[in-house]
Amino acid sequence: MKQNIYDNPEFFHQYKALLQRPSNYNRLLEQPTMKSLLPSLTNLEMLDIGCGMGDFAQYCIQHHAKHVTALDVSSNMLSIAQSENAHPQIDYQLQAIEDYEASANRFDCITSSLSLHYVKNFEAVIRQIAQMLRPDGVFIFSVEHPIATARRTKEGNWIYDEQGKRLHYAMDNYQEEGIRQQTWLVDGVVKYHRTIATIINTLIDHGLSIDKMVEPQPSEEAIQRLPSIEKELRRPSFLFVKAKK
Amino acid sequence: MKQNIYDNPEFFHQYKALLQRPSNYNRLLEQPTMKSLLPSLTNLEMLDIGCGMGDFAQYCIQHHAKHVTALDVSSNMLSIAQSENAHPQIDYQLQAIEDYEASANRFDCITSSLSLHYVKNFEAVIRQIAQMLRPDGVFIFSVEHPIATARRTKEGNWIYDEQGKRLHYAMDNYQEEGIRQQTWLVDGVVKYHRTIATIINTLIDHGLSIDKMVEPQPSEEAIQRLPSIEKELRRPSFLFVKAKK
Repeated sequence: MKQNIYDNPEFFHQYKALLQRPSNYNRLLEQPTMKSLLPSLTNLEMLDIGCGMGDFAQYCIQHHAKHVTALDVSSNMLSIAQSENAHPQIDYQLQAIEDYEASANRFDCITSSLSLHYVKNFEAVIRQIAQMLRPDGVFIFSVEHPIATARRTKEGNWIYDEQGKRLHYAMDNYQEEGIRQQTWLVDGVVKYHRTIATIINTLIDHGLSIDKMVEPQPSEEAIQRLPSIEKELRRPSFLFVKAKK
Repeated sequence: MKQNIYDNPEFFHQYKALLQRPSNYNRLLEQPTMKSLLPSLTNLEMLDIGCGMGDFAQYCIQHHAKHVTALDVSSNMLSIAQSENAHPQIDYQLQAIEDYEASANRFDCITSSLSLHYVKNFEAVIRQIAQMLRPDGVFIFSVEHPIATARRTKEGNWIYDEQGKRLHYAMDNYQEEGIRQQTWLVDGVVKYHRTIATIINTLIDHGLSIDKMVEPQPSEEAIQRLPSIEKELRRPSFLFVKAKK
């Protein structure tokens, strides 16, 4: 999370353009899955880690959450959040989760969409989250799927034939956890690969119990709107975990 | 489990030869991981699903289990078990788990090594296991890793360059659960691919809580004894789950 690629002007310009497309992975796959995993939000005290432009925080308030603390490391993101999704019950903070302090048992629900693969010390962050969550509280997050982050390469992982047809997805280096430098919109985006076992066991070791795992599949409608998303059936891009304290 | 490839004479001949090698995946990777996940077995009532030649059942008795019910669908396997690993506290039964009946809460510990990917109806078997397990009982199993079973192909999934160097592992068809016909020792071995999310959620939906996941890595010693096992660092062959009722 401390990596702040979102304040790189070129990255941000391209990312904003991507997010504003009516058909993108966030709108068609990630956000519908995240919303499907939420409990009733009525009167919940929430923390959203990596809140971006604040659409999700706004959604939570519209669905009767009591209050959302919404963290992001990017001032670019937060200035859009403040102008487009400001609300008296949303507290936007320019803050990395690693540096954020809150009293124990403060939140009923903690969420994070596609941000924890930027975190270097996953265990420390999960320890923090487990402390901030009240007993029976819910933690729901998505990360890039370990199948997708495993291979140490800057090239894409889809392998094509000479006619440009996708043959299969290349997997490698699965057990080598750590930095993956990728080209995504710009060069040198740093993400961290962890195995599925590490992700799950870290939660359990910090007193969280696994409630559900989701490897989302695109709906028929999503495939009609963005045909290339059909490849999600061949290998998952995202992994969701819902856990309880 | 009802598929009984182990009573195919050609398969069995080759399988036996494989298992008798001092360095194979069972000895170097699967069994050490399974044993590392076991609780203290003292005085436990155990069920081993897909017991094969009975070495594991014998190990459990040596480690003070009270009794092991050991099921297998292969009479070839069980005749070796009876001659090499017979014990008054082990009850070998020629039985598929799907057809096995036991009273509720009967077992303290249920294990299964690399057999549940032969089961067609995973949910029904997990329901059965959850019923047969006593409260606080432990269920530990390994299956072929969904990363390894995903791709619908009879060829191998390692992709080589012209010099025969392994380039990467091919992943595909991940979300298409169901039959995978593979060539393993003989043609037409039928296994079932399921996603990681399906495996985990099926356990949770039947009242089991996830205690640990393991994607085993070979030890230095294992790599010295069988250098080709190093490729397990590039993609996992096995997935272990330890769950509690």
